[in-house]
Order: sequence, then structure tokens, then C-alpha cells
Amino acid sequence: MNQILVTGKSGRMGQTIIQAVEENPDAALASTHDAGEDLAAAMAPADTVIDFTIHSFTGEVLAEALKTNTRLVIGTTGHSDEERAAIVEASKTLPIVFAPNYSIGVNTLFWLTRKAAQVLKQERFDIEVTEMHHRHKIDAPSGTARRLLEILNEETGTNYEDDIKHGRVGLTGARTQREIGMHTLRGGDVVGDHTVMFAADGERVELTHKASSRMTFAAGAVQAAVWLTDKPAGLYDMQDVLGLQ
Amino acid sequence: MNQILVTGKSGRMGQTIIQAVEENPDAALASTHDAGEDLAAAMAPADTVIDFTIHSFTGEVLAEALKTNTRLVIGTTGHSDEERAAIVEASKTLPIVFAPNYSIGVNTLFWLTRKAAQVLKQERFDIEVTEMHHRHKIDAPSGTARRLLEILNEETGTNYEDDIKHGRVGLTGARTQREIGMHTLRGGDVVGDHTVMFAADGERVELTHKASSRMTFAAGAVQAAVWLTDKPAGLYDMQDVLGLQ
Amino acid sequence: MNQILVTGKSGRMGQTIIQAVEENPDAALASTHDAGEDLAAAMAPADTVIDFTIHSFTGEVLAEALKTNTRLVIGTTGHSDEERAAIVEASKTLPIVFAPNYSIGVNTLFWLTRKAAQVLKQERFDIEVTEMHHRHKIDAPSGTARRLLEILNEETGTNYEDDIKHGRVGLTGARTQREIGMHTLRGGDVVGDHTVMFAADGERVELTHKASSRMTFAAGAVQAAVWLTDKPAGLYDMQDVLGLQ
Amino acid sequence: MNQILVTGKSGRMGQTIIQAVEENPDAALASTHDAGEDLAAAMAPADTVIDFTIHSFTGEVLAEALKTNTRLVIGTTGHSDEERAAIVEASKTLPIVFAPNYSIGVNTLFWLTRKAAQVLKQERFDIEVTEMHHRHKIDAPSGTARRLLEILNEETGTNYEDDIKHGRVGLTGARTQREIGMHTLRGGDVVGDHTVMFAADGERVELTHKASSRMTFAAGAVQAAVWLTDKPAGLYDMQDVLGLQ
Repeated sequence: MNQILVTGKSGRMGQTIIQAVEENPDAALASTHDAGEDLAAAMAPADTVIDFTIHSFTGEVLAEALKTNTRLVIGTTGHSDEERAAIVEASKTLPIVFAPNYSIGVNTLFWLTRKAAQVLKQERFDIEVTEMHHRHKIDAPSGTARRLLEILNEETGTNYEDDIKHGRVGLTGARTQREIGMHTLRGGDVVGDHTVMFAADGERVELTHKASSRMTFAAGAVQAAVWLTDKPAGLYDMQDVLGLQ
Repeated sequence: MNQILVTGKSGRMGQTIIQAVEENPDAALASTHDAGEDLAAAMAPADTVIDFTIHSFTGEVLAEALKTNTRLVIGTTGHSDEERAAIVEASKTLPIVFAPNYSIGVNTLFWLTRKAAQVLKQERFDIEVTEMHHRHKIDAPSGTARRLLEILNEETGTNYEDDIKHGRVGLTGARTQREIGMHTLRGGDVVGDHTVMFAADGERVELTHKASSRMTFAAGAVQAAVWLTDKPAGLYDMQDVLGLQ
Repeated sequence: MNQILVTGKSGRMGQTIIQAVEENPDAALASTHDAGEDLAAAMAPADTVIDFTIHSFTGEVLAEALKTNTRLVIGTTGHSDEERAAIVEASKTLPIVFAPNYSIGVNTLFWLTRKAAQVLKQERFDIEVTEMHHRHKIDAPSGTARRLLEILNEETGTNYEDDIKHGRVGLTGARTQREIGMHTLRGGDVVGDHTVMFAADGERVELTHKASSRMTFAAGAVQAAVWLTDKPAGLYDMQDVLGLQ
Repeated sequence: MNQILVTGKSGRMGQTIIQAVEENPDAALASTHDAGEDLAAAMAPADTVIDFTIHSFTGEVLAEALKTNTRLVIGTTGHSDEERAAIVEASKTLPIVFAPNYSIGVNTLFWLTRKAAQVLKQERFDIEVTEMHHRHKIDAPSGTARRLLEILNEETGTNYEDDIKHGRVGLTGARTQREIGMHTLRGGDVVGDHTVMFAADGERVELTHKASSRMTFAAGAVQAAVWLTDKPAGLYDMQDVLGLQ
């Protein structure tokens, strides 16, 4: 049974991860931690730490984990180059999962999108991507959509600057084969919908992910922690955890 | 039984209208006409003409119909002011249906969109519109989408220039209450999909129309012809035919 | 400003209604009540009660409201004939909203479905309904879907027993014009999706509602309370509140 | 340049295949054939035959192809055991593609569904399948949907008889983990829509294919013919043609 330390226990994400640990039959909650508490004491009974607090806390977590040989699942983003280098260095000694998105569904969508793009060639299939998030989101398109576009760019030999169309209006002329339409919808309290569409003469293939709660990210992080159990030191992402190669 | 003359009989739209007449139990094909043939002879056995050829032919059709007291369904667009005035003048004597789109479904979508916008107030419901057409379409958004935006503008007190967002990219900031997102997808051979979305905290309402063939326009034109049977002289559109008031 | 009493304050729905009151600029929280507390004291400062607790509590709420001339929004279901008669009787003296579903979007869907069915005649448009709810739901189809089917039955002259098809399998033969397909999906934690589809040769119209949180029901109940402010005694439902006639 | 013989030239599918050959830059129309015409003469100038006529014609095509060492793409279904054995026997000498469905999109959907089911485990993701076809289709679910269910059964260890639910109605109780919902919609002139949905707490993944014309099947058959050009004798299907392993 994987004994897990959850940091940031009083935050909304911390609470959700605690619930996800309790719902996973292969994981148990060893301890929790909050800002100002003793991290060494919290880490003592744990095999693995799941940390979704803030990137500036990663250094402290790494230092303590190196002392106790504790595995890590890091869910924070926005690390400086220096902070990132510390993660890489620690991964020579410790098994670490470090991923921008822990949703199993989103990672599966990334992978299926790559496979689909390899088969449904742009010579025949036009590619369009849509995403929708709540009205408060301030950037467009979403990070997940940008990752989808990166994957599509890699597989089709197109690039972000020249070939992504953000909105069409007026006398656009006919669609070019290389272009990839990107459509960013905003409204209500939508947690996150993404669709990749491949449209040819006579048929369409659509791949869609719809997120409805942060539980999806928490459950993925716990799955990553369980997966780490028997892994050697190294730096892994969710594609590794899910076996999506 | 409504006896119908179909013009442009050798064109793709003419062929489809002929088929739609044959499939409508309340209509019969009286005669057909093609460029260069005798229009008077073609009109003699008909109660109603359905003309989807080209706007410059409308004057000739009107002149002949006025002689024989024949009802008209006009499906061409792009008339000059003068041509349009001739239609209005003829409608003082003849019953005429003149509409930009004869699809029953699209006209129903127009009407449902207006009703929905009256109930689902912009104070709580964010509005987003998407449309998709084939890769060869050269303008964006579609005429049908522009009509949807007009209806939404009328009901919400917004306007096209200030409040319609064609594509979002970069640091957009949070969505404003007044804005209406418009997303134009292009790909494959899609005949025409349109969706109007009302998104609030906790719920979404979506109204969608999907066209898969020109038969939908032909069937609506024949329905308009049948509806005209017992109508007095006047200028009608599809909202009248469908009783959508 | 409408002063509101929320009953069942410690339950999940009560909590959500309290939040919805606080978010509505035309309503204020006058008081709350929980099982075992003094109802008369709670009702004293209120203009309107919103009660979503349990049908067996309705009688007590009605008795107290009659003493203090307090308006009511009743969100419970499953009343006995006797309990229902008490509501009708009280509505001769008090303004009462009593509805099976307080979502603005769902009530709009009911209304749009009726209008669409009047225009998109079954002679040409085949009707199919789908709904999806979470895996724990024990009955099929949902109450909302059954109400949609009732509306469709009324408008098409069909009936539930003979014309609703719950699942098709094997050599079914061609679809009949009168039948209405009903498809009940179950999975994940879906709060509630409903779609009514009208499919003809060449086109489809689809009306969809997606609920993502119970806030949608709470916000509708508070809107009903505000609407009641200047209404005479009588029994109303959400169609009245929303002006959907 | 691949020189192709198209059989059944006056039928609707034959006409569509001829058009698809003309649109494929790597294929050329060598000859055509219709019932009653001389097959040997038609086959003489061809490298590859595409036959979508009827299973009882396969024997004659095979016999002639063996004489002239001509490659085959067989698009007919419903072969007897004897007819099928003849195909297998001929494939020891000739390269043959023999597949139940030549749509690139549908075959991609098959493959993506298998991959998704391997990652999105039934322990957490509930599986539901929907399909929609035109009102004239007499069997349910479609052959493509049945193939999707086979793939899902193989990957989840479930089986068709016990675990596929065709329609839910009444007091069903909560959904079981093993069950796979199958929903067959019929209406209008829909060519063929299929969706496989994986629904977990907090997220959904949906894979969809929408066919809008028979051209999709014709284009796939021509792609199979071109792919055969440099292949050794053997029996192949569309998974081989598309490299979906």
C-alpha cells in the first residue's frame, strides 16, 4: 500500500487530493502538511509526496525527500530555470513524476490526437480545434489547447506562427490545406472542453475531452503516485504513467 | 392540387426542386423551364412558379406572372434595388414568397434563437455562436450565422461592430457580459452546421441546425408554394409560411 | 428588496440556495431554518420562504405562512394528494410558485421543444431524445426526459405507451413516423444532459440542455421568489415566472 | 501509376469509385465492367480490380485475376464459407485487400477506440456507445457499432450477451461497472454517426465519426488499391493499409 503525504491540506486542491487518495484502493493517506507545519515530521511516514501547492515550495520538498528517499509527484507549474534544474538533479536519485496536467483523459486526448494526425493526413483531412472555458479565464487559447496545437504542428509539419488561424472574418478566401483553425469559446462556468476535428470530403473524426471537476486532476496525481511504487530514479511524465508511447 | 412550374430545370437546384415537388403530396409538377425556352408556354398550366435561377431573371418571371395571375416563390438573392422594387410592386397584385433561406429548420432556428434570447438574459447567460461549412467557402461567417447575430443583437441591445468577437487570442482578459463570440470553422464538405450556445453558471442551452443536402431548401420552397394557395396578394417570407410569429 | 427565509440551511441544497440569494441583487437573506428550530421566529422577518427540504414539511410551512401572509417557493416533490390539496387551498390566499424543476434552462428547453414540435411536423421530422446522468441514478429515463416526452406526445398526438421506443436491437424494420426514440445514457458524474433531435431528409434541429451544478436550480428558485413580489394570490409554475406562454 | 478496373460501373457505388479513382493522383482508370460484359477484356489493361458489386461475383473475379496476376480490392460482404475460402486460397498467389468497411475515418475510429479502452480502464471510466442512421435502416445496432462493441469487449473482458445494454427503462438500479450502453438512433437521412464515450468522475472522453457520403468508402478503396502496388501476395485489411497496428 502506497503511503502518501499530501501538502497544502487546507487548500481546495489539497482537499480534493486527500479525497482522491481515500478513493484509490492502492493508496493510503500517511500524513498531510500545511504552510508553517513541520515538513520533516509529515514526510516521515510517507513513501510518496503529492505537492500541488506552489512552485516556490518545490525546493524545500526536494531537499526533505532526498534525506528520506521519498518519491515525488509534482503538480505545480511556473518553475524558474533554477527550480527546474533542481528537479532534474533530484531525479537522478529519486523517482519523480512532473507533468503540466495530471488528467488521465487529457493525456489520453494528447496521445490519440497524435495518432489520429498520423493517419488522417492533412492532404485529405482539414484540422480544426475548439475549446471552451468559463467566462473568467483571461488567456486564449488554453494551455491544453496550445499543447494540442503543438502536437498537431509536429505531426503535420506546420507551425504555430504561420498556420494557426484564430478566428475567421470577412472575405477569407477558400481554406488552405495547411491551416489549423483554433476557436476559443468563453462562457458560464465551464471547467474545460476541448475538441480536435478532422474533416474530409464525406467524413469527420472528432476527439473530445470534457472536464467537469478538479477531481480528474487529483485522481491522476494519485494514479501517478501508485505507479511510482516500483520505479527506479528518474524523471517521468503522465505519458509514462499511462503507458502512452 | 397546386400545379407548379420549376425554372432552371437542368441545373442542380432545379433538379432538386423537381424531386421535392414530386415528393410533396399537395403539389404536382405542371411544367418546367430552362434558359432559352418559351416562358409563357411554361407558365400556362401552372398556379405557382418556383424560381431559384438568378436574380436578373426575376423581372421576366414577374412580367409573365402578372399576365397570368400566377403565384411566385422567389429563391434567388442579390437583387438590385430596382429588381427588389419590382418584386414589391408585383406583390400588390400577386401572392409572393421571397426569402433568403427556405430551409424549414434554419427558419425554425432563427425563431427559437429569438425566443431563447428573450428568456436567457445576457445578465446570466453568455452567448457564443459557432458555424461550420466546407473548405471552399470564401466568406466568414456565413449568411445564416450573420442573421443569427442580427437576431441576437436585436434581443440583447448589442451591435455587430462593438460586441461580436471573431476569434480570441492572447491575454484577452475576462469575458464581458455584452460580447457574443462568433466562431467560423471550415473543413471537408460540410453543407452547413450552426449552433447558438447560452452558457450560465451551472447550465448551458444549445440550439443547433445541421444541413446535409440542398433538398432541405427545395422542400421548404415547395412548402411555401403550397402555403400560397389560398393567400391574398402580398409579400411573405418563410416566417409567415411556417407561422413563426 | 425581497427578504427571504431559506429552510434546510445545513443541507447541500439549502447551502446552495443561501449562496444564490446572496448573488441575486434583488434578494436578501432574512433568516434561515433547520429541522428542530422555531419556524415562526424564522418566518417573522421574511417576505418569502424557499423550501427545498421534504414534501412532508410543506404542511407546516403552509400553516405558518398563512398566519404571517408570507409568499412561498416550493421545490420539493412527491407530495401525497392530501399535501397537494393543501398547497392548492393555500394558494387562494397566498402567492405560491410550485414547480418540479426550477432550472431556467430546463424550463426554456421544455418551452422551445413545444414550439419546435409545432413547426417541425412529424410528417417530415423524426424525433429522438437522449439524456445522460451519472452512474448512480436508479431510474430511466429521467423526470426531465419524461416531461419532454409528455410535451412531444401532446404536440404530435402520440402517446407514451405505444410510441416511445426505449432502445432498438435486432431486425427492427424501418422506423415508423410516429415513434419517438428515447435513449438513456448513464456514466461518470454527469449532472444531467438532455437533447431533443428533429431529423428530416437533409437537415436536423437539436435542442440541448446541460446542467453542471445544483446552483442552476437554486438560482431559478430565487428568481421565482423575486418574481412573486408583486403577484396576487395564486398557484404559479416556472413557465409563469419565466413568461413562457 | 496504378491502373484500375472498376466493376459495377453503372451502379451508384461503381460511379462513386470511378470518381474517386479520378480524384486520386496515384491512380488511373484502366477500364470498367458491368454485368454481362466481357470480364477478361476489362481486366487486361488493369493492375488492380476494385469490386463492390455482390459477393456471388467474387469467384469469377478471382478466377480471372489469377490468370492475369491482377491485384484485388474486395468491398462486398456476406460471402458464404466456400466463397470466403476461395479468397483465402487466391491470396496465397495474389495481394488482396478484403475489409468490411473501407472508410479511413471509421477504421481510425476502430483503432483509436481500442487504444482508448486500454488506457481509460473500466474501473473508472463507464463506456457508452451511440450511433445514428437514416430512418430506412432495418437492423440495430449498425455493423460498425457492432464492430466497436467487439473491440470494447476484447479490451475490457466483457461480452456481447451479458454486458451490452440496449436501452434502459424503469427502475434499472445503479449502473454496473461492466455494462456498456448501446444506443441506436434512427431518423432523417443520416448517413452514419458513431460515438464512443468514456465517462469518469470529473471527465469524459468522446470519439466520434460522422459519415456524410459514400465517397468516404470509395476513397478508402482506391487508397487500398494504391497501397497494394508493391505488396507481396497475402490477405490484408484496412488496418494494414492504414498502418494501424
